[in-house]
Amino acid sequence: MKKEKLTIVKVGGAVVEDEAQLAQLLKDFSSIDGRKVLVHGGGRRATKVAERLGIETKMVDGRRITDAEMLEVVTMVYGGLVNKHVVAMLQAQGVNAIGLCGADGDIIRSVKRPLKNGIDYGFVGDVKKVDGQKIAQLIEKGFVPVVAPLTHDGEGHILNTNADTMASETAKALAALYDVTLIFSFEKKGVLSCPDVDESVIPVINHDDFKRYKADGTISGGMLPKIENALGAVDAGVNRVIITLATAIDGQHGTVIEK
Amino acid sequence: MKKEKLTIVKVGGAVVEDEAQLAQLLKDFSSIDGRKVLVHGGGRRATKVAERLGIETKMVDGRRITDAEMLEVVTMVYGGLVNKHVVAMLQAQGVNAIGLCGADGDIIRSVKRPLKNGIDYGFVGDVKKVDGQKIAQLIEKGFVPVVAPLTHDGEGHILNTNADTMASETAKALAALYDVTLIFSFEKKGVLSCPDVDESVIPVINHDDFKRYKADGTISGGMLPKIENALGAVDAGVNRVIITLATAIDGQHGTVIEK
Repeated sequence: MKKEKLTIVKVGGAVVEDEAQLAQLLKDFSSIDGRKVLVHGGGRRATKVAERLGIETKMVDGRRITDAEMLEVVTMVYGGLVNKHVVAMLQAQGVNAIGLCGADGDIIRSVKRPLKNGIDYGFVGDVKKVDGQKIAQLIEKGFVPVVAPLTHDGEGHILNTNADTMASETAKALAALYDVTLIFSFEKKGVLSCPDVDESVIPVINHDDFKRYKADGTISGGMLPKIENALGAVDAGVNRVIITLATAIDGQHGTVIEK
Repeated sequence: MKKEKLTIVKVGGAVVEDEAQLAQLLKDFSSIDGRKVLVHGGGRRATKVAERLGIETKMVDGRRITDAEMLEVVTMVYGGLVNKHVVAMLQAQGVNAIGLCGADGDIIRSVKRPLKNGIDYGFVGDVKKVDGQKIAQLIEKGFVPVVAPLTHDGEGHILNTNADTMASETAKALAALYDVTLIFSFEKKGVLSCPDVDESVIPVINHDDFKRYKADGTISGGMLPKIENALGAVDAGVNRVIITLATAIDGQHGTVIEK
């Protein structure tokens, strides 16, 4: 049976916080045909709210250390402030958005991350199971899930979870049911061969390309886990992964990640 | 056709904030048979978070004045902190809870309250339309809606809305589809004839009783809008409204409001 098309767009904290960019992205998202899901971040906003509350933000390798107080902050900011704002804005565009975190409908369960290299990340959850059937039930009723980067452990606790990971794990789970395109939007036009040259977008990256670019240093830093995530998704049956500018999520721009 | 039973429980901010009481309430809610919906408040928590952020809470007749900053606070606290905590706790009880505000799935629209007696309540929404069909779609898929007291205006804005009103308006909308029991839980055993005597619960109040109790001063203050809300719900087809203690939501305790 031919699978229906489904587009999953991940939008990061920088875009979410810039009202003009966010409005443009949501307009573009609204015009994507067919079934769709939005996964959002919100880290910068969380950092600002934490600061106002007198709570210090600690990061290790770009990941937030989430103690009990910081967990309250991210639950408020991701699940409330950002998620409901995005949902209301999409509703105004005629998109029947429904805000969800992993606990809602038990769609995404995680396990609290164990110590890694002696680092305690606190209340951070590594995704254990995405219930694609439940998400599909909502999608088939015409709802457009807007997913906040929070999960739960099934024992009553919310956990902070990386939004890129949530997007790719959701894409993998839904790949069994749909022909999935996963779009990671961010502040660059794609994966660049020269970090300072905006136009140096690498059009396609497969496993072999990635090994080469990694070895010769063309790709480094925060882009490495992004591409590993993307390659993992295509390996698991996601049709296409695209890394692109937040204002160019039409599937025609950016870097395509292939098997 | 015989309608299926549906129970809607409203739980206020005082219970939501007391972990022991909340755990007990959610356990009792979990054991309610059949279809159900939980509507929660969170005002006290919002006041505390606002205070920590240096934002002053202003109330007029028990209603929160919601300026732009306070709107962010209630969106965070009701939609994120409280809602996701309750959802995760219900999931741990095996209840397939799904957190929603009025914007999610466009289930509850409101209009920004106009000046009332010269008072500008700010970003407060008066309920305009509850989409019972959409809520029923979720319920019939096995989800248990957990509703935060936020609505939207359809033009991209979240609005702060009274949780009692959301519960009664939701009950009215769902009364067309279900045999609805609406339970308002709070810190007293019911509507009391002597405010200081815990056991002086009035078992049944109808329109005539209410007029009498109001005239002779037996019922006054914050209980008046609660009962008006409840009477409005039974007039609009809700089968039963019960006002009861948060630890006694089994339908066997408290004050029953009848036509």
